[in-house]
Amino acid sequence: MAFDFGTLLGNVDRLSTSDHQSVVSINLFVALICACIVIGHLLEENRWMNESITALVIGSCTGIVILLISGGKNSHILVFSEDLFFIYLLPPIIFNAGFQVKKKSFFRNFSTIMLFGALGTLISFIIISLGAIGIFKKMNIGSLEIGDYLAIGAIFSATDSVCTLQVLNQDETPLLYSLVFGEGVVNDATSVVLFNAIQNFDLSHIDTGKAMELVGNFLYLFASSTALGVAAGLLSAYIIKKLYFGRHSTDREVAIMILMAYLSYMLAELFYLSAILTVFFSGIVMSHYTWHNVTESSRVTTKHTFATLSFIAEIFIFLYVGMDALDIEKWKFVSDSPGISVQVSSILLGLVLVGRAAFVFPLSFLSNLTKKTPEAKISFNQQVTIWWAGLMRGAVSMALAYNQFTRGGHTQLRANAIMITSTITVVLFSTVVFGLMTKPLIRILLPSHKHLSRMISSEPTTPKSFIVPLLDSTQDSEADLERHVPRPHSLRMLLSTPSHTVHYYWRKFDNAFMRPVFGGRGFVPFAPGSPTDPVGGNLQ
Amino acid sequence: MAFDFGTLLGNVDRLSTSDHQSVVSINLFVALICACIVIGHLLEENRWMNESITALVIGSCTGIVILLISGGKNSHILVFSEDLFFIYLLPPIIFNAGFQVKKKSFFRNFSTIMLFGALGTLISFIIISLGAIGIFKKMNIGSLEIGDYLAIGAIFSATDSVCTLQVLNQDETPLLYSLVFGEGVVNDATSVVLFNAIQNFDLSHIDTGKAMELVGNFLYLFASSTALGVAAGLLSAYIIKKLYFGRHSTDREVAIMILMAYLSYMLAELFYLSAILTVFFSGIVMSHYTWHNVTESSRVTTKHTFATLSFIAEIFIFLYVGMDALDIEKWKFVSDSPGISVQVSSILLGLVLVGRAAFVFPLSFLSNLTKKTPEAKISFNQQVTIWWAGLMRGAVSMALAYNQFTRGGHTQLRANAIMITSTITVVLFSTVVFGLMTKPLIRILLPSHKHLSRMISSEPTTPKSFIVPLLDSTQDSEADLERHVPRPHSLRMLLSTPSHTVHYYWRKFDNAFMRPVFGGRGFVPFAPGSPTDPVGGNLQ
Repeated sequence: MAFDFGTLLGNVDRLSTSDHQSVVSINLFVALICACIVIGHLLEENRWMNESITALVIGSCTGIVILLISGGKNSHILVFSEDLFFIYLLPPIIFNAGFQVKKKSFFRNFSTIMLFGALGTLISFIIISLGAIGIFKKMNIGSLEIGDYLAIGAIFSATDSVCTLQVLNQDETPLLYSLVFGEGVVNDATSVVLFNAIQNFDLSHIDTGKAMELVGNFLYLFASSTALGVAAGLLSAYIIKKLYFGRHSTDREVAIMILMAYLSYMLAELFYLSAILTVFFSGIVMSHYTWHNVTESSRVTTKHTFATLSFIAEIFIFLYVGMDALDIEKWKFVSDSPGISVQVSSILLGLVLVGRAAFVFPLSFLSNLTKKTPEAKISFNQQVTIWWAGLMRGAVSMALAYNQFTRGGHTQLRANAIMITSTITVVLFSTVVFGLMTKPLIRILLPSHKHLSRMISSEPTTPKSFIVPLLDSTQDSEADLERHVPRPHSLRMLLSTPSHTVHYYWRKFDNAFMRPVFGGRGFVPFAPGSPTDPVGGNLQ
Repeated sequence: MAFDFGTLLGNVDRLSTSDHQSVVSINLFVALICACIVIGHLLEENRWMNESITALVIGSCTGIVILLISGGKNSHILVFSEDLFFIYLLPPIIFNAGFQVKKKSFFRNFSTIMLFGALGTLISFIIISLGAIGIFKKMNIGSLEIGDYLAIGAIFSATDSVCTLQVLNQDETPLLYSLVFGEGVVNDATSVVLFNAIQNFDLSHIDTGKAMELVGNFLYLFASSTALGVAAGLLSAYIIKKLYFGRHSTDREVAIMILMAYLSYMLAELFYLSAILTVFFSGIVMSHYTWHNVTESSRVTTKHTFATLSFIAEIFIFLYVGMDALDIEKWKFVSDSPGISVQVSSILLGLVLVGRAAFVFPLSFLSNLTKKTPEAKISFNQQVTIWWAGLMRGAVSMALAYNQFTRGGHTQLRANAIMITSTITVVLFSTVVFGLMTKPLIRILLPSHKHLSRMISSEPTTPKSFIVPLLDSTQDSEADLERHVPRPHSLRMLLSTPSHTVHYYWRKFDNAFMRPVFGGRGFVPFAPGSPTDPVGGNLQ
């Protein structure tokens, strides 16, 4: 947290003035976040706006006000910091996503998600890098090395999973949500791995060995990050089940869950793994086991606390990006040639559009080949939505761009300044314009969903056959599943419905081995004379 | 939070290694906090230990391990930082204390609390300062100015309200809890005000005008800090009631409550008020109005979230103090004369004991004079407990001592180093030794409480007459109150039972004006077609 404040205390004289500037910043940010929440609430019914855009707009307006007050010298009160983003803001968002994700839907589409997230990001990375090399080399934007072009590819392949969460609705479009969001999580990991690989590898001579090393590195990172997340989740479940914290204090249960989740993220950072993947899987495991081992009030508390922390972090990020976008220092390098900045931004936006189209449609086709029933296939309209919903670029892109093109948030090179301003432009444009158009687009391309979800909630007697294909991936009830999924009798069945079969054996394993050890739904903690948990008891 | 990380990014090269040292620190701290929680849970039934002492011991052991690993060079991984303490750790603890305090008991004892907290702290400050001047001047400890002696008075007058919360139990000893804890909050404010006053005023010539100015300054700070806290609480209640956030999202309600509470603290810091008082009163107002305006799940969430955050912050502070205590750098200045350090620490401990005795017993006598019934009076055994329970010195003392005697956590002057090591010794000794002895002492001095509370919980039919004097100040139910408090008929009644009468008129005012505007218990938000809140409905 403020582990480095100590080094800054040298110039502090009095207690009450100590770091008064940071007190001012905190006040401003907290007040602005409150304003965003209130405005977001008032705009809830609005069909265009969402909270991200509100925060971006408020952030930009505040930036303008600060710019005017400071006489055109300064527009922001804090320098964009990767650590603030990666260590404090991203963990709650990704953990909450894992904690609240509909697990069945996520794992049923696991192969498609991996295809999109890993292979798709690689395709997008190659296309954007090659496009940047081909086009920018001919333009007068200063010296960029091969490493810079590859970094551009990685930066603009990172979709904004935070924004995706806001424009897609898990209940209205469950398949799309799990595909796009799941892809986003894997994509984040892939981009960061690619980016680190680019910075570490000697890029002057690339051969097959190097490429294999990269692939191996990615597989190692994916496997170890996932394993760490699962281990942290299981450990928390085991500790809480074994010691039965709820006997003495609800707060200890909540504290252990929060701290173990954060610890898994920080351990992954410590070992240079993909912390995003780790905390995502830790969230999934915690919601499957740990959450069912705690008392009823801890359950309510953790569910809402994680959601609230994630919500505050999201607003903070967009406010921050909006305020930072007007930083006069970055723009003064490109002010002599505004045309070039506009050109570069447009080219990058074009490459983002093409790069994403180049993998969504072919990979959807591939994925559809493995599906037998028409309901499981991804329709063309759904493909267009997937393509569109993943176009937004956000704080991950910003953080990577700052890391590649600046030192401590500042740059003196013209080419670097152009890349920074272009990244800001792409982030703002894609978030605001693509973001604004996503909700209406979904309504046009997939008109049945909104209508349908309303029907489901108002008329529970709607004919089953009509809603089953959709409900199938929303319902997360194990009891339901046991009824619907037939026992696979033969190898032929395993081949025809692999995900159902895998799921069946997973459930058997879960019930026979995992739950007795780690708890989970229906588990009632044993303690002599303890009050029986009402919800746990009901479900057993 | 990490608003200053940006300035540290200059020496960062790769994304994953960015500030790797702080990643290591965070991992270690989070893991240690988890360990403290688990050990604290296992020691719950123990009659001596509490979580603070566990954390102090674990912190010291970790310090020893780090000292051995680093070859005797270093024992801590972070420098003690006032900002970390005052900006991030203290607000959740004090807010939660205000939020969970039994309001009726607190306000009924308000005059006694103010007497102890303000006048008592001043008496203690004068005695410790005069004692330090008288004794230390004769000892060979280096040059200390008059301002340093007065600072010593302020530093060692600050009781540790965090530790008090852990050794006293609100349900077992409600009167003592509200007196000692309420005093602790006012005391914190008084010490910080005194400390700031000492640093700002020209101490070479003190006259009556200066003294009056100091008193005026204190009264202004107290009034304005309280007003700000009340205003922030009422604003949050009004916004949530008016806009009815629960209609769309529980998370917005929780977020607004957390952010408004934190904003009140930071605003007080911004205007150089006593942020501790502000956030304490904001907690009281929020639990009286705002908390009743939100949905049922928000109520459960906020209650446990505030408690959990406070719990984590407390453990963190003690861990931190324990680890910092072994900092080799501070001890090397006094290593040539260990006798002097022991002498100074013993003298300070003695002054703390005398300084507290000098106000607890006389002021209790004064307070008893105004009470008519023997139950309302503070018995001698209770006075001893109050004296004892407020002897612990904690992180506030540490923070003030670092502020006065170091620059950025380091010092080169021998006298200053001695004061720092003595402060650490006093804090460790008072927390561990006095802390360990508080639970048994309460059991000896006030034997009926433990027994009684067990009787109440197991036998709800215990004769009323026996438990009424104790239950009277625990029960916080308004319905109960309306029955028990008679309508005051005359001025004589106001004079004989002032607190009851004030409370009666406050309830009338609250019901007639405040609740219709700000909500509160029994309020059901109006929204067309909204689901009626079950708890709000039941209580109406």
